[in-house]
Amino acid sequence: MESALSLSTARMLARSPFQLHGRSLFGLLNIYPQFRRNINYYLPRFPFKSHARHNLQVSASISARPSSELRKKPNNSEPDDKLAAIRELFVRPDINIDAYIIPSQDAHQSEFIAECYTRRAYISDFTGSAGTAVVTKDKAALWTDGRYFLQAEQQLSSSWILMRAGNLGVPTTSEWLNGILAPGSRVGIDPFLFSSDSADELKEAISQKNHQLVCVYDGNLVDEIWKESRPKPPNRLVRVHDLKYAGVDVSSKLSSLRSELSDADSSAIVISMLDEIAWLLNLRGSDIPHSPVMYAYLIVEIDGAKLFINDSKINPDVMDYLKNAGIEVRPYESILSEVESLAAKGACLWLDTSSVSVAIVNAFKSACDKYSDTSGNVNKNKKTAANGPVNKSRGPAAVYKSSPISFAKAIKNEAELEGMRNSHIRDAAAIAQFWAWLEEEIGNGAILTEVDVADKLLEFRSRQDGFLDTSFDTISGSGANGAIIHYKPEPNNCSIVDPEKLFLLDSGAQYIDGTTDITRTVHFGQPSSWEKECFTRVLQGHIALDQAIFPDNYPGFVLDSFARSSLWKIGLDYRHGTGHGVGAALNVHEGPQSISFRFGNMTPLLRGMVVSNEPGYYEEHAFGIRIENLLCVKEVQTPNRFGGVDYLGFEKLTFVPIQTKLCDLSLLSTTEIDWLNDYHKQVWEKVSPYVEGSAYQWLKDNTRPVVKP
Amino acid sequence: MESALSLSTARMLARSPFQLHGRSLFGLLNIYPQFRRNINYYLPRFPFKSHARHNLQVSASISARPSSELRKKPNNSEPDDKLAAIRELFVRPDINIDAYIIPSQDAHQSEFIAECYTRRAYISDFTGSAGTAVVTKDKAALWTDGRYFLQAEQQLSSSWILMRAGNLGVPTTSEWLNGILAPGSRVGIDPFLFSSDSADELKEAISQKNHQLVCVYDGNLVDEIWKESRPKPPNRLVRVHDLKYAGVDVSSKLSSLRSELSDADSSAIVISMLDEIAWLLNLRGSDIPHSPVMYAYLIVEIDGAKLFINDSKINPDVMDYLKNAGIEVRPYESILSEVESLAAKGACLWLDTSSVSVAIVNAFKSACDKYSDTSGNVNKNKKTAANGPVNKSRGPAAVYKSSPISFAKAIKNEAELEGMRNSHIRDAAAIAQFWAWLEEEIGNGAILTEVDVADKLLEFRSRQDGFLDTSFDTISGSGANGAIIHYKPEPNNCSIVDPEKLFLLDSGAQYIDGTTDITRTVHFGQPSSWEKECFTRVLQGHIALDQAIFPDNYPGFVLDSFARSSLWKIGLDYRHGTGHGVGAALNVHEGPQSISFRFGNMTPLLRGMVVSNEPGYYEEHAFGIRIENLLCVKEVQTPNRFGGVDYLGFEKLTFVPIQTKLCDLSLLSTTEIDWLNDYHKQVWEKVSPYVEGSAYQWLKDNTRPVVKP
Repeated sequence: MESALSLSTARMLARSPFQLHGRSLFGLLNIYPQFRRNINYYLPRFPFKSHARHNLQVSASISARPSSELRKKPNNSEPDDKLAAIRELFVRPDINIDAYIIPSQDAHQSEFIAECYTRRAYISDFTGSAGTAVVTKDKAALWTDGRYFLQAEQQLSSSWILMRAGNLGVPTTSEWLNGILAPGSRVGIDPFLFSSDSADELKEAISQKNHQLVCVYDGNLVDEIWKESRPKPPNRLVRVHDLKYAGVDVSSKLSSLRSELSDADSSAIVISMLDEIAWLLNLRGSDIPHSPVMYAYLIVEIDGAKLFINDSKINPDVMDYLKNAGIEVRPYESILSEVESLAAKGACLWLDTSSVSVAIVNAFKSACDKYSDTSGNVNKNKKTAANGPVNKSRGPAAVYKSSPISFAKAIKNEAELEGMRNSHIRDAAAIAQFWAWLEEEIGNGAILTEVDVADKLLEFRSRQDGFLDTSFDTISGSGANGAIIHYKPEPNNCSIVDPEKLFLLDSGAQYIDGTTDITRTVHFGQPSSWEKECFTRVLQGHIALDQAIFPDNYPGFVLDSFARSSLWKIGLDYRHGTGHGVGAALNVHEGPQSISFRFGNMTPLLRGMVVSNEPGYYEEHAFGIRIENLLCVKEVQTPNRFGGVDYLGFEKLTFVPIQTKLCDLSLLSTTEIDWLNDYHKQVWEKVSPYVEGSAYQWLKDNTRPVVKP
Repeated sequence: MESALSLSTARMLARSPFQLHGRSLFGLLNIYPQFRRNINYYLPRFPFKSHARHNLQVSASISARPSSELRKKPNNSEPDDKLAAIRELFVRPDINIDAYIIPSQDAHQSEFIAECYTRRAYISDFTGSAGTAVVTKDKAALWTDGRYFLQAEQQLSSSWILMRAGNLGVPTTSEWLNGILAPGSRVGIDPFLFSSDSADELKEAISQKNHQLVCVYDGNLVDEIWKESRPKPPNRLVRVHDLKYAGVDVSSKLSSLRSELSDADSSAIVISMLDEIAWLLNLRGSDIPHSPVMYAYLIVEIDGAKLFINDSKINPDVMDYLKNAGIEVRPYESILSEVESLAAKGACLWLDTSSVSVAIVNAFKSACDKYSDTSGNVNKNKKTAANGPVNKSRGPAAVYKSSPISFAKAIKNEAELEGMRNSHIRDAAAIAQFWAWLEEEIGNGAILTEVDVADKLLEFRSRQDGFLDTSFDTISGSGANGAIIHYKPEPNNCSIVDPEKLFLLDSGAQYIDGTTDITRTVHFGQPSSWEKECFTRVLQGHIALDQAIFPDNYPGFVLDSFARSSLWKIGLDYRHGTGHGVGAALNVHEGPQSISFRFGNMTPLLRGMVVSNEPGYYEEHAFGIRIENLLCVKEVQTPNRFGGVDYLGFEKLTFVPIQTKLCDLSLLSTTEIDWLNDYHKQVWEKVSPYVEGSAYQWLKDNTRPVVKP
């Protein structure tokens, strides 16, 4: 065994222990703190499909071209006019700011927003769903994440700097402002568009250079320059969401919420998330494309509730419904004054500072200052621990806690799940009709654009019972367009669906009883073996997540690696999360759960939650692959229950064939082949009763079992 | 499709949306914050094998009996004498405390400690490696985690309350103190035994009830009652760790460290972790069983270095070695006065408050107050941002940052890895000899205890070149004892190795060139099909982790679920992490990386790190299964490198057969069978040259390929 001890010292000394690939290992510590910051500051509230991966991870994602290399004329003929106009406002004495931040959100932190609130898109021309524009007196920059780099390159004029959030060396908005503004500058925001938390973070970050965060209350500056061309705020009628779909009536929900308020020693709560209001009141609206919600605020007190909404949206029936539930209607604009009144009457107000705007939180704080008892018993701005005693003394106080609606809404009741199941079957029937049509057309040599195809899908869906709307802009991407993760084809600027390339179709619908979201990737001709390998590995990830069984109360990110493992084996990956929550006849993206590499989201997966399962692989300038089903978290009857806990798994909601032509069957294990055949058997059994003719035949052809070679 | 919309409202209304199994969903929010607290306050610094899983997860792990049900006489005939004695000290005017907290650690946050520092074990009689004792004037409680519940039940006398940390409803130490002490009480600690961070947390937590944290500087109270029977502090000679094993000489390491100090605008650093000192100076000691380290502190300045150590441990050769490296030797006890001197000369001192004791940090803070310039330029106690500018003004200052040694030590250089590989082959040869011996003995009907067997293994190992010590107490558990995760058989109180039961053997050794840690589980007779299923599922988890490929810079916890997935499928799990870091001829447990459900540890896995791969399954009162190899993180040559990042995987270090008799081959996939056969082929090729006779034959028999039925 002597020889086992002989070592080459030359080899040993070749590398300093502190050096790794030329990078100081000690230096790693400097980026380590950033590694912990999982949620990028300006990303949308719903973490799904946003890709500001931790810095270390995306450090080398340098394939998108830097802005400086872009050599194309501005899309807009006069882009600088808007910047010039807004900069004129900066110097107005009542405003007096050196920079203005324009986020994507509306006043309710919505992901989809009414057109009149698309201020960031108006000022920058970048129309992607996520991004933040910052305008200083001489610069303009736009931050967006990986899924939108290509789109932003195309849409931004040369007046704008594109900031690829998450890439190594790309500063955050506040880092950038700290770097370019003279110390002590004034950074303006519209306080309705920032949650209290994000405003606090921003304030803290820019205070390093003694910059001041200035809440510009007197109107949004973009609105001011937008003038007459700005669309009117939406004003559609609100409808009652039928109890047979909602499952629980509004009185029961309010009563449960009030118990929670009491338990937290609160007397009132402000709710500003639109889907939370819609869910709690069993109301639906049409103010926003794809999201069946209405612009409103809600205050629930122990002994009453007030809905702040433009009352022209409320017809007499809905007004009666609200009255019966003990809900008064107030003008949308009166929310701040009502919050002040709550302080005046000594309310202990539950505020979710992650969603409620800094305008509302500050209004309450100021009013607390004003109305606190003068006995020296200072209760104002009190931060209350989650379980601590609250407000035993007099005077108004704020209780800062997460919204109690978020979890209650995420965990579907049996009626909601039944609606989801039923709407998914009707959706699947429409999709089968669509694919049958499309394959036939393509086979006949028809020339169809990505938009033609999306329109036809909408046509099939709209014939289904209870159809209301698409649940998001259809992503219809042929070939290289499939690699643009949130690609939105435009009628005058989209591709022909190429029969010789992969075609990715991600779409969904809002029905009266449920919300769908499905992606399929197909090839109309002969896929290459590389395309098949990639597709098969994405499918293996999809199957691994679908089949996962895990202990109750585990956070979703634990499952994310199951969906990537097969891709990782050959050095592939995808830059988006694997699963997002989905509302029941509500928003297609909802929290709080997710299945993602965003390890900061510790929300446990609980039975009744609905999540998407959508691994993918994207080869830039070539093709995109994604396979997406919706799943419902259910309890699994495992033969054992170690630790006395329940074990959970998934029930599939989506039943549409997966193209077996794209599968490299030699890569699939027997278990995976069984999964595929079993899934297609279920698809056939569930969906075939609802289709006929060519769609019936298509379904039959596409659910045939495959055999491992 | 009409029928698809028909729903039973009765079913829908059966359950309130806010209720889940009788538990209010809103109520979940109340425990949600605790869910985020991954690292239990009092667990050992090295996260491995500690099981204070988040509360939600272990809420139902109620199988261990509550203390109140224990019906056994105290192990110690006079347990109350010690408590009475220490309580007498409480009321001494110079002490004057209402409670005293006795942690497991020594002054260096070591996991294994010299006997003279085992104060918690002395006061409580509980000898497990992790636990915290708290004594008040009328109560005494001991906190430990899941792996020690059974042992603590057996060892604690009736004077003690057992607190099962991590179980639902079990308070933390501070919560308990807040609940039972009169407001404004004084809680004492030995400030050398608490890191600055943990003391701060404790201080903050008990301040809720206006309790005061009292640092008792005048000696440890347990030492005071321990008196003459307390063992002497260890005083073994220090040796130089040969450059051919260390790979990099001390001057190079010090030089790299000094560059880091400069980059952080620091002029000095205090290092108190014993393995960090040993690694940095290429020294090894024998002060602590299993850990080749010596009790010392180290201060490195830009222009010098001082080792604080009892100089009788330093022979002339080592003294010369230190002198050549520019390192002065100072008495161990003079660390505080030297830290004060640093402040006196205006040092900017790097302090890792997670490891450096509150005694040292406070000494520096106080000295900073004393020696700060009086120009009003207050620099004292300055918290410095990781990358911020530091101490451009005069006067001493503290820079609070993680130790730069931790990462540098964790990432092994090629010489260290070569030593690990070589020592593992010699270790494997000893283990093969051992198993051959044991199977023959058992086959011949020999009656052997768990201790006999552990002793024999030590005998075989000690014959190997470069053997120094075991790397931890051998866990030799027959049948039900195998389910006690950190079982330590005692000569007078252990079981016979039962040929009809599973036998779990977790052991390791310190060699001159490397550190080993291996677990194998075997059956000498005919295992039941249930035992085989459990073993096979543990093996599947082991293989899944071993074969994992993942992007560079991913945190280890992402891989933890791979190791559990196969168990989860049938509702099984294990209550410990899957992988811990291992030192190179150093501590068998080291940070900062881990592969665990402790999702708070965001340390990325980087090439050159060594981790264990040790999934298990434990059936209380029946058997334990664990399969453990050590792995080294290496770069994998994947055919693609999506995102421009490297992809990593593992190289095996451990080469000892896995008992195929325990495998249910019908459960294993072809890929898994291939893994097993390939591993055994490698074991044979690497280890057979180093064994002969019966061991050679045993190795041949136990590395034969298996065939899927």
